[in-house]
Amino acid sequence: MKKDDTKEKTLSRRNFLKTTGAAAVAAMAVGNLGMPAKYAQAAGDALPKKWDETYDVVVIGSGFAGLAAAIEAKNAGASVAIIEKMPTHGGNSIINGGDFCAPGTKLQQENGIPDSPELMLKDMLRAGLYLNHPENAKIVAYGAKDALEWTESYLGVKYVKIGFHGGHSVKRAHGMLNQTGAELVNKELAKVKELGIKIQLRTKLVKFISNKDGRIIGIEVRKDYKFPDEKSGKTAFLKAKRAIVLGSGGFSQDIKLRQIQDPRLTDKFGSTNQPGATGEALLAACIAGAMDVQMDWIQLGPWTSPDEKGFGFVPLFCEPLVGNGLMINPKTGKRFFKETGNRKERADAIILMGNPAIIMGDSYAVNKNVVPHAVQKGMEIGAIKKFDTLEDLAKNYDIPLDVFLKEIARWNSFVEKKKDDDFDCMIFKDTRPTATAPFYAARLWPKVHHTMGGLVIDKNAQVMGFDFKPVKGLFAAGEVSGGVHGAVRLGGVAIADCLVFGRVAGKSAAAEKPWG
Amino acid sequence: MKKDDTKEKTLSRRNFLKTTGAAAVAAMAVGNLGMPAKYAQAAGDALPKKWDETYDVVVIGSGFAGLAAAIEAKNAGASVAIIEKMPTHGGNSIINGGDFCAPGTKLQQENGIPDSPELMLKDMLRAGLYLNHPENAKIVAYGAKDALEWTESYLGVKYVKIGFHGGHSVKRAHGMLNQTGAELVNKELAKVKELGIKIQLRTKLVKFISNKDGRIIGIEVRKDYKFPDEKSGKTAFLKAKRAIVLGSGGFSQDIKLRQIQDPRLTDKFGSTNQPGATGEALLAACIAGAMDVQMDWIQLGPWTSPDEKGFGFVPLFCEPLVGNGLMINPKTGKRFFKETGNRKERADAIILMGNPAIIMGDSYAVNKNVVPHAVQKGMEIGAIKKFDTLEDLAKNYDIPLDVFLKEIARWNSFVEKKKDDDFDCMIFKDTRPTATAPFYAARLWPKVHHTMGGLVIDKNAQVMGFDFKPVKGLFAAGEVSGGVHGAVRLGGVAIADCLVFGRVAGKSAAAEKPWG
Repeated sequence: MKKDDTKEKTLSRRNFLKTTGAAAVAAMAVGNLGMPAKYAQAAGDALPKKWDETYDVVVIGSGFAGLAAAIEAKNAGASVAIIEKMPTHGGNSIINGGDFCAPGTKLQQENGIPDSPELMLKDMLRAGLYLNHPENAKIVAYGAKDALEWTESYLGVKYVKIGFHGGHSVKRAHGMLNQTGAELVNKELAKVKELGIKIQLRTKLVKFISNKDGRIIGIEVRKDYKFPDEKSGKTAFLKAKRAIVLGSGGFSQDIKLRQIQDPRLTDKFGSTNQPGATGEALLAACIAGAMDVQMDWIQLGPWTSPDEKGFGFVPLFCEPLVGNGLMINPKTGKRFFKETGNRKERADAIILMGNPAIIMGDSYAVNKNVVPHAVQKGMEIGAIKKFDTLEDLAKNYDIPLDVFLKEIARWNSFVEKKKDDDFDCMIFKDTRPTATAPFYAARLWPKVHHTMGGLVIDKNAQVMGFDFKPVKGLFAAGEVSGGVHGAVRLGGVAIADCLVFGRVAGKSAAAEKPWG
Repeated sequence: MKKDDTKEKTLSRRNFLKTTGAAAVAAMAVGNLGMPAKYAQAAGDALPKKWDETYDVVVIGSGFAGLAAAIEAKNAGASVAIIEKMPTHGGNSIINGGDFCAPGTKLQQENGIPDSPELMLKDMLRAGLYLNHPENAKIVAYGAKDALEWTESYLGVKYVKIGFHGGHSVKRAHGMLNQTGAELVNKELAKVKELGIKIQLRTKLVKFISNKDGRIIGIEVRKDYKFPDEKSGKTAFLKAKRAIVLGSGGFSQDIKLRQIQDPRLTDKFGSTNQPGATGEALLAACIAGAMDVQMDWIQLGPWTSPDEKGFGFVPLFCEPLVGNGLMINPKTGKRFFKETGNRKERADAIILMGNPAIIMGDSYAVNKNVVPHAVQKGMEIGAIKKFDTLEDLAKNYDIPLDVFLKEIARWNSFVEKKKDDDFDCMIFKDTRPTATAPFYAARLWPKVHHTMGGLVIDKNAQVMGFDFKPVKGLFAAGEVSGGVHGAVRLGGVAIADCLVFGRVAGKSAAAEKPWG
């Protein structure tokens, strides 16, 4: 709302009260005292003088989950609008790596990989430290195959390889064409267009609007919003006759919010996410009475570099090197943690150290394990460096040389006997001593990658309130929801979550009884 | 509100609207559209027709924090009321063990223990996995000594010994007379009475009441409430001219809420807390716009028994035995985890196992390490058992005998060489093989002990909202607040937190500008 609008409306309201007199004022003061108000909000929000647009279902967010919800809602007969605050569609999904984990698929069978929903659920719960909402995790594990097949048969998505992510028991990551989530987003988008659903870009949620019973009946938005200028755009009111689906993603880029949940995550930490991955839609839902859960479980990638933006190329360099090279603290010249530790352990260790680590490998390790493309691109932007000698490498990163050379010799002795006495790092059969010039290295500093927490939802994607009751008219799916992943989201399960619960949310929203 | 009341008020409101007519209805529908509403709540709550009572400051809860807040508010010149939903005062504090951690005190000096606030803060942050809100943790570590001295000099609390809790670097737990928090609660209570502050027992918060600007101006309560009968009692409205202080404690006994945050914690888990340790006041604050944080960090005691209620005697038996005896899975007859692991690790291991563990020691270990009182009391209620032979012990708990006897022999071999090859349990200098009859044992199943998460507060104990702004008129202290302890609350730091922030909250509330 622009300042002028506010003033105008305040004035008109004052005039209105003046003319209707004391009786009206008294009526407002009494409010809903006699009602079974469990919410503060149950007093009812300010209702717009008029709704600018009316739909059965309004979807907030245009990533995997939001688009899937829109398609299902439309196919169930609802009129649907999608709003997206950014100038382009796709949210964070469109820059996602495009791995869809699902158990028992054709591609797995073709590759001779036995798998089952039980096993996927078990992996999810173990990784999630059993904080996962078990019913919801089960819905994803058991629904992933069907959702994946839907993307193939109904949307035409192509999966070209089956890959592995840490924490899974088997290879079940179905890699999309061109290794990017854009494959799925664009196919969803084509279907959205085919079905005649409009996406309103640059349209930002300001607040949810509830009626006196606490039912969500619409939203206030800003149209022509120019991220991140909070003063840009014009107020409009969208009425949702049946329901809202929130598919607004996570808050990895929201420094203020993530620092409340995990105070370590200051602006010293970048993010692998698109800049719009902020939490205001999630918080707007909390203000409207929705309960949040496990918001402090924020996943960091330990394989990212401070010397490039976003996800970058260093992760593709780092991950194949662990167990084949060394991770060094440049301040001491020594190793400081098990290179093959899990994401969380390694990220925590680097943060505790307080300065970027160095990941390094010799030419044997790099040539054998890292895709040439990643090395080349990383070197072009200066995030990966090549050195003719260990001395040059030490000099570049200001590493104390004597200690460093001794540490390399020590690591090499571990490699010879295939046992790391210091940190119990896995050393592979084909790992060789770090000795063959040239040497490659990159700096590592964790980036915020995924926010596990979010709104509490039930099996129908119905958002639950702080009073343990449904927030009527509000559904959520994907990263904005919490509970599916518990403490740790495994690689490739985000897409499964978004597609399974996105579709559920769309169907639920379309089936919601209209309020007016 | 009783059913009849609701009906009556609904009816009277309808009649009122009928008489004032359409103009009034229109006025309500327009609501506060023109106002700078950030909250749904900013529409303003139902205001009571009349306030039944008026105070400067209303304190919710009569434990360590609430009482400290009431005393400070009163001493700052405010009129104060304390409400307590239970039939007795003291909340969970009155059954607390009475250890107050503070650094650099006289008692530490007399015992030759060097300590500092820096060191205590470091211990808190390390235990808290650095999730602690650092400024608030610092306020507790640096304010603990002053708060402790205040309880001595102003309240007359007696500290009789200096003790140790796991995770601290030094002995800094100041043990109160009779080893109970009742010493402090009762001294606080005596001061409360001396100052003329009334405690309203059986008075339960129903909801916070905000004005149109979102400022908290009072509360709706039920008087003559009979826990846990939610239909008992009569509605009343308390006006707080300056502020509310929420000191309502944690939610260890709230099965519904804790299961959302940590789904493992079903009703299979008891709690060491008093039955009233439920979360509805915390949630009422969230409904009023307050932001919650780190609610999923719920501390379990791994040393509690399913064979006695509450905290009981088994913890006093178990803790001195770890490193001196064995913890066995009765289903396999084998050890399953490092006995000297920390609280969280051990509790997690038992839960994952899915059945109670057995802690056992021989007569040498028990006589040397466990206070006779605990053994005697535990045996009286049947939670601790004595056996003449290992065979009898195995038979009683249905442990496979052969494996069990081999495991005892294996443990004893570790004791001989002072090194546990299986789980790296600490084995002490005076640990002896488990061999001397009689043998003592107890079953272990974790109980919910403390909830680290809660409302976000700033350094003035001001509650923060989901919009990152103060929830005006609302302060919080103690277990209902979150952030001080991060992931893990160390033993003896709960009292420090309650006293430091309770006093801060009382002063802040009294200094708040009156709204009307």
